[in-house]
Amino acid sequence: MNLAPGSVVGILGSGQLGRMLAMAGAKLGLRTHIYAPDADAPADDVARQRFTGAYDDYEALKRFAQSVDVITFEFESVPAATLEFLSQLRVVRPSASALAIAQDRLAEKTFLNAIGMPTAPFRSVNSQAELKAAASELGVPSILKTRRFGYDGKGQVRIEANTELAHLPDSLLKQDCLLEGFVHFKREVSLIAARGRDGSFAAFDLCENVHKNHILATTCVPAAVKGETEVNARNMAHKILESLDYIGVMGVEYFVADQGDGREGLVVNELAPRVHNSGHWTIEGALTSQFEQHLRAVAGWPLGGTRRLGAITMENLVGDEVERWPTLLADPQASLHLYGKVETRPGRKMGHVTWVR
Amino acid sequence: MNLAPGSVVGILGSGQLGRMLAMAGAKLGLRTHIYAPDADAPADDVARQRFTGAYDDYEALKRFAQSVDVITFEFESVPAATLEFLSQLRVVRPSASALAIAQDRLAEKTFLNAIGMPTAPFRSVNSQAELKAAASELGVPSILKTRRFGYDGKGQVRIEANTELAHLPDSLLKQDCLLEGFVHFKREVSLIAARGRDGSFAAFDLCENVHKNHILATTCVPAAVKGETEVNARNMAHKILESLDYIGVMGVEYFVADQGDGREGLVVNELAPRVHNSGHWTIEGALTSQFEQHLRAVAGWPLGGTRRLGAITMENLVGDEVERWPTLLADPQASLHLYGKVETRPGRKMGHVTWVR
Repeated sequence: MNLAPGSVVGILGSGQLGRMLAMAGAKLGLRTHIYAPDADAPADDVARQRFTGAYDDYEALKRFAQSVDVITFEFESVPAATLEFLSQLRVVRPSASALAIAQDRLAEKTFLNAIGMPTAPFRSVNSQAELKAAASELGVPSILKTRRFGYDGKGQVRIEANTELAHLPDSLLKQDCLLEGFVHFKREVSLIAARGRDGSFAAFDLCENVHKNHILATTCVPAAVKGETEVNARNMAHKILESLDYIGVMGVEYFVADQGDGREGLVVNELAPRVHNSGHWTIEGALTSQFEQHLRAVAGWPLGGTRRLGAITMENLVGDEVERWPTLLADPQASLHLYGKVETRPGRKMGHVTWVR
Repeated sequence: MNLAPGSVVGILGSGQLGRMLAMAGAKLGLRTHIYAPDADAPADDVARQRFTGAYDDYEALKRFAQSVDVITFEFESVPAATLEFLSQLRVVRPSASALAIAQDRLAEKTFLNAIGMPTAPFRSVNSQAELKAAASELGVPSILKTRRFGYDGKGQVRIEANTELAHLPDSLLKQDCLLEGFVHFKREVSLIAARGRDGSFAAFDLCENVHKNHILATTCVPAAVKGETEVNARNMAHKILESLDYIGVMGVEYFVADQGDGREGLVVNELAPRVHNSGHWTIEGALTSQFEQHLRAVAGWPLGGTRRLGAITMENLVGDEVERWPTLLADPQASLHLYGKVETRPGRKMGHVTWVR
């Protein structure tokens, strides 16, 4: 299904990613309707229509679906049942099946290994006994993660030699978990890739990312990696999206590891089946933004050009870092984005700033 | 008055300029409320709130004004009385007095000449007798224009040697008119200039424009003029905005004339006291867009950087030219904008496309 201009794209989720998707939709002559549990959220300012409801309020979901021509989402924790329900009413892109893999760390890593992509070693862990066994197999340090609903470091505990496994928070092992072996990496990079309905593939230049407290702090492009590493990252992302029959933008996160012989190796850290924080620079820094790219794919339209227009630094404004806004506004090299969030909280992404040089 | 992030900007007018202003506002964390007589217009898709009312519905205008922190406009034909009324309730930028000059061709040309800016020669014309006298003074060809409410060639008649002055449409001379002597120009250019609340001035690179049927068809940047001509255009615009104590973006349209001795002369054609069609390329082609620049000024914030990111071609999609959208979407060098207008009409601006090379 290809949309006509003037069509309505439904977006699940009303955060800053939904806000920037809605703005990209308006550029293309598409209208956006937002569905989310919370009222007065960032995407509401720029959406044509807002639906407030829980993700299991099937009556409200049905009204939303009937008001739109196609459905997408801005975050990967949409319940699978919600997406399956919506899929019966409207085309959903990316598909519910692609999302199902990307929202479960165990399914994701199993899938990646099956198509030949290296990941951190991992073990499924559902009890103290399994955790103990897995920790002795994978060694320390290792990272215990919930299989689902983790982001920005939430739902993670680092296991060290002196960690008392019996004293981990109860809440963690009540959920299905995964123990991941530690990857000794020298850089974190991400590729913002897109696949169109026609199977075409496009990617922006590789992003180099620095995290602070598990939250993305800065992205620089180009990444300081070997040319062959960037080619590998593209090829790996291409294979991942192809294997998932994926439609839309996906952020593929990699670790870059030294292989000892002067060569760099790539390990897939995580798939984000949506537009990605490390791709925000594309708004100013590339001819097509990742948000427009995603909507082009979702609309069944050709992908846009991904050429970069300069050297990029993107910085997130997390928590009270947003108070730097007057200084950033006064920097003639900087392009400031604020997400319209009324309340500043620690760890909350309030905006970002991009430098194109 | 300087706005805080999260403030509400009220915009009079709901066309594509209002739409692109609202999108730029969302980037900066500003909310926009739209006031316009027509419902279901381009800006409605992306505004936080819409007010539908006539420009002389003072009750509705008052409700609108009370819902916002500052007021601006996207077109210059807002009735002066409307703006004066609103100015008593909220800060209006640009000011009602600057608008009053720019919306009356006679006042505008008189002002420009008074500050030393060359314009086409002109005569005020309010009757057949005055028209006859003016035509014999200024010669032919010359252009009869209404003093107010003209745009895209509306309210204009070209007077040639064989024009029967007595047979001009009655409707024209019922309004106050101006006869303008013809300027033999070799190019049309425009400068998208901005002045901040602090008196700072910034301009994007000079735009070269080609019109078709009096409607802007294409803009190319850089303009094919001498370096000194571009400097002159900047200096002239600076003086104009300064003299008007102007706050916001203004499009200054110039004719470039050969002065015979190999030098180029600039004649001011028209002032557009708002964001301008020839500045649409700044969305992709400059670090700050003209829409953001206007809102920065209106908010009392510092102006943004105007550096251009490549060689620019911008093409308007007028009337059924919009049917080229599938081809333009498939061009990886092109960035397509559609305004969400439901009905295509001849002469109607439906979208535009920008190439950054």
